[in-house]
Amino acid sequence: MNDIKFEERKTIEQVEESTELAPKFDQDGLIPVVTTDFSSGEVLMQGYMNDEAFKQTISLGEAVYYSRSRKTLWHKGKTSGLFQKIKEIRIDDDQDCVWLRVDVQGGASCHVGYRSCFYRSVPFKGDGSKTILKFEEKEKVFDPKKVYGDTPNPTKL
Amino acid sequence: MNDIKFEERKTIEQVEESTELAPKFDQDGLIPVVTTDFSSGEVLMQGYMNDEAFKQTISLGEAVYYSRSRKTLWHKGKTSGLFQKIKEIRIDDDQDCVWLRVDVQGGASCHVGYRSCFYRSVPFKGDGSKTILKFEEKEKVFDPKKVYGDTPNPTKL
Repeated sequence: MNDIKFEERKTIEQVEESTELAPKFDQDGLIPVVTTDFSSGEVLMQGYMNDEAFKQTISLGEAVYYSRSRKTLWHKGKTSGLFQKIKEIRIDDDQDCVWLRVDVQGGASCHVGYRSCFYRSVPFKGDGSKTILKFEEKEKVFDPKKVYGDTPNPTKL
Repeated sequence: MNDIKFEERKTIEQVEESTELAPKFDQDGLIPVVTTDFSSGEVLMQGYMNDEAFKQTISLGEAVYYSRSRKTLWHKGKTSGLFQKIKEIRIDDDQDCVWLRVDVQGGASCHVGYRSCFYRSVPFKGDGSKTILKFEEKEKVFDPKKVYGDTPNPTKL
């Protein structure tokens, strides 16, 4: 399906200053991924890709992650229909993090039903020791029970 | 200095749907952090916080990370002067990732000298097997040698 090749990591200069794609996967073979909405800039989710997920994302033009809870490739949207169409892929200075800028079909990315996974804010500086989260999204975009049915909740305690 | 308390993680409903801050730190005691520019929405960097760094960030209103390469708390800007002033802190559905929205004094966040660490894009879908990165920022904002001097480069191969 794809014949994308990653370069071997040779020097700091190559990694930081060159045009060679030489991603660093961690001890579990994963690289963290930040996904933002292309139009609003909002951070939608943070996930992980392994070597194969990254290659599929590049060749498919849709976000493919690696699910740590299910230990499998995860083509986002396959269950929910909420596919993430890639508009741009960025990689950071030391190539150990990927930023995906996407358009979301259906407008939501969070399994709880919100547009973004980051639907709550944390008060800071002088708000006192009682740290009460504030909901920044007032309503869910979809009903997760209708979309995911009996699929186990991915959240781990 | 701070008396911020994190809640114990008890149920999935508490973690996902309540106003209790119950962050999940991984096996190394870290939580990933995505940092974006408050005005442009651009992803500036991705880092990590431990329990203490997260508490300091909340009480200080400036980004404090945990440096995995230096194995120490890292008050961003202490060396470079490029402090990140917190405008908003968000936490995700299962509370294992933090999103910081910041204003950057000096306008740059990347140790290589660029505004964002994500100064290169990865071509995708139909661009062929030769994956040549493209520089999306044309010029560095600062000269890292002048700002960091002989501080060792944090990039690891």
